[in-house]
Amino acid sequence: MTPTRRPGRRAGPTESRGEILAAARRLFAERGYDATTVRAIAQEAEVDAALVHHFFGTKERVFVAALELPIQPAELLPQLVGGPRDEVGERFARLFLALWRDPATRSPLLALIRSATTNRQVAAMVRQFITAAMLGPLAGALGVPRLRIVTAASQLVGLVMLRYVIEVEPLASADEEEIVRLIAPVIQRHLDAESP
Amino acid sequence: MTPTRRPGRRAGPTESRGEILAAARRLFAERGYDATTVRAIAQEAEVDAALVHHFFGTKERVFVAALELPIQPAELLPQLVGGPRDEVGERFARLFLALWRDPATRSPLLALIRSATTNRQVAAMVRQFITAAMLGPLAGALGVPRLRIVTAASQLVGLVMLRYVIEVEPLASADEEEIVRLIAPVIQRHLDAESP
Repeated sequence: MTPTRRPGRRAGPTESRGEILAAARRLFAERGYDATTVRAIAQEAEVDAALVHHFFGTKERVFVAALELPIQPAELLPQLVGGPRDEVGERFARLFLALWRDPATRSPLLALIRSATTNRQVAAMVRQFITAAMLGPLAGALGVPRLRIVTAASQLVGLVMLRYVIEVEPLASADEEEIVRLIAPVIQRHLDAESP
Repeated sequence: MTPTRRPGRRAGPTESRGEILAAARRLFAERGYDATTVRAIAQEAEVDAALVHHFFGTKERVFVAALELPIQPAELLPQLVGGPRDEVGERFARLFLALWRDPATRSPLLALIRSATTNRQVAAMVRQFITAAMLGPLAGALGVPRLRIVTAASQLVGLVMLRYVIEVEPLASADEEEIVRLIAPVIQRHLDAESP
């Protein structure tokens, strides 16, 4: 595939990639995740849409790269929904805690929580991205109502708020295995469609 | 009780109250909740400590007034721990949802979450206040380890984050009774000391 470039522009691949990400950040912020298309990002960056697909593949991946998110939902989902159905709560708890244990993933996630909490545009982007890239696929794969998925996620989000943002003891320094023991059954319960 | 005033100062009761709150805000922000005493607040406000007690009673109440919090933990605790032990999860869920349903309490609580998420000093104040005024008394009254109380609280905090801050559907517009049905058993489980 030969990237199409406008006459007079001499951007190399690195510059094009950077321009695509800058354009994506502007559009996601202005229009939100849902209303932003790969075609619009390409137009804003003055490159061919094929180049955006070449660099990133999907809109989800442009978003992850543009916001420098340390996770790729498309790669995490198989880990969550694969394996025994009655251990899905534990898999959620362990994966989530591992992402937050590692400073390389924790720092950008913390930055995102801080932005989404204080900036309505960021909150809207995050909301639409969570819904499209995580909530929908998870609800489909697990066969439970979306409300249950969001409620399960809320247990994990609150854990992060009190452990890493407000740093309330004894949760802030609690052993990860002890947290898994407390949290996994609760996530499991939320994700069991048949629980009352 | 006659308020003691320094010679040359002519502050009336309203001015004194305002000065006490301004002094309290400065000290809580500089030193945190734990290290700030009623005596130090009085000294900073240049009034007698008896006047602080006269207006507010306790350090906890000075904090609530200084940060314009819409709740008095000392008044909420009896509602939570009173009543059947096996309905404590439902009482937590209902009280919490009621506080967040009412815009008069929701707005200042949202403002506090936003500040605590982005400002380390506010986070420290909130952390110490939660620990001293809520966590300690609740753990004592319910006879469960503090880690369980914080974990129960994390379910409620995460609920608020996704329902009111990020506004993820279908949680954002879910019926309150439906949320209680999903959340109350989970809070109950966290607060049952004998659960595995």
